[in-house]
Amino acid sequence: MRYELYYWPEIQGRGEFIRLALEEAGANYIDVARRHGGESKMFALMQRARQKQPPFAPPFLKVGNLLIGQTANILMFLGRRHGLAPRSEAGQLWTHQLELTIADFLVEIHDTHHPIGSGFYYEEQKKESKRRTQDFLKNRAPKFLGYFETVLARNKSGFLVGGRLTTPDLSMFQVVEGLRYALPRAMRRLERKHSRLVALHDRVAQRPRIKAYLQSERRIPFNQMGIFRHYPELDR
Amino acid sequence: MRYELYYWPEIQGRGEFIRLALEEAGANYIDVARRHGGESKMFALMQRARQKQPPFAPPFLKVGNLLIGQTANILMFLGRRHGLAPRSEAGQLWTHQLELTIADFLVEIHDTHHPIGSGFYYEEQKKESKRRTQDFLKNRAPKFLGYFETVLARNKSGFLVGGRLTTPDLSMFQVVEGLRYALPRAMRRLERKHSRLVALHDRVAQRPRIKAYLQSERRIPFNQMGIFRHYPELDR
Repeated sequence: MRYELYYWPEIQGRGEFIRLALEEAGANYIDVARRHGGESKMFALMQRARQKQPPFAPPFLKVGNLLIGQTANILMFLGRRHGLAPRSEAGQLWTHQLELTIADFLVEIHDTHHPIGSGFYYEEQKKESKRRTQDFLKNRAPKFLGYFETVLARNKSGFLVGGRLTTPDLSMFQVVEGLRYALPRAMRRLERKHSRLVALHDRVAQRPRIKAYLQSERRIPFNQMGIFRHYPELDR
Repeated sequence: MRYELYYWPEIQGRGEFIRLALEEAGANYIDVARRHGGESKMFALMQRARQKQPPFAPPFLKVGNLLIGQTANILMFLGRRHGLAPRSEAGQLWTHQLELTIADFLVEIHDTHHPIGSGFYYEEQKKESKRRTQDFLKNRAPKFLGYFETVLARNKSGFLVGGRLTTPDLSMFQVVEGLRYALPRAMRRLERKHSRLVALHDRVAQRPRIKAYLQSERRIPFNQMGIFRHYPELDR
């Protein structure tokens, strides 16, 4: 069955976490809004009055008659279907727990440049962004990265869960990539203390399907509209 | 089997969403950190070096050897076990999707009084809180509440999912309660446009087990330390 991914066509954003899972799975999918007329199709679907289970926001995934929203929820679904999650209930709960912790991290990363609200431009909250980013770099980023480093250290396989790649490995690859783009100077310093995360990032980047994807036009470059944005003044 | 809930003993916070599910289920549980010596037990568990699957933060739930973290993840687990979620995979994904959207809403509610970071006191970010709360009340709260109102309107049973109570109904009860405490003036205005949500709130409050719980000492009163805090200057 062909998956239909619905997400903003011009950014990596949260959709990228789904794309990485679909690509690693070698799944048959289309990135609807990036096709001609696809963005209006996405809006139409969101506003469809007889949609009994409407998504709150993109990304969402259409699988036959099923419409699944919320990034971590979609990843849980795909993980089970494509061997990117353990088979046991306990293993799946743990995998999802990590994915939800990454989702929390993403909110805080986004809010470094939008502390007052996503409805305001960055330029309208520049001073506040500096303060929030300082706190983020001093306290929050080390806490989150340290947590995942600990999980890797205790698991010992080089992956976050069990002995094989699961969706949170793909997601952490994207977080490392994104932080390198957004806050390169700070990230260089942070990486020194998180060598297992860097090794995980490199391992994911070398997976044949991920490698091919990253070199393809399907991978949207980082830019100033997504979660990860590079404002040099925030990168002390 | 007896559940052990681990959460900060002095606040409702995210732990409250778990308490409501445990109470509605009539489950056998202890609220560990509220017992004598329980808070140190919680810290010990979090810092235990041989814990292979450590939680990032409370709340977490111990079920035999299983340690489950992340509020929405715990609710998914409890929902399946106690008939507070549908049986079908599609139904469970939808229920969880709603729970994750509530989790997103909670972050935004919390950040109205902590836009610059949870490491700073409210008094250190009062001006920024006013700006963020204005945007929250004008744009974000109507968007989230409107979404859940639409879901109720389309589902028609008076519950969010199917024809029976599920965990997101309990969680939305708590959101309405919390917003009434935190921003009573604004909430009075908002409620006029969200009568189905108010009716859901009232329906949950009348469930015999929830009613008994709310009147018991197990229910911690709202205060100025949790997600929902009442600062009159933010409640325009």
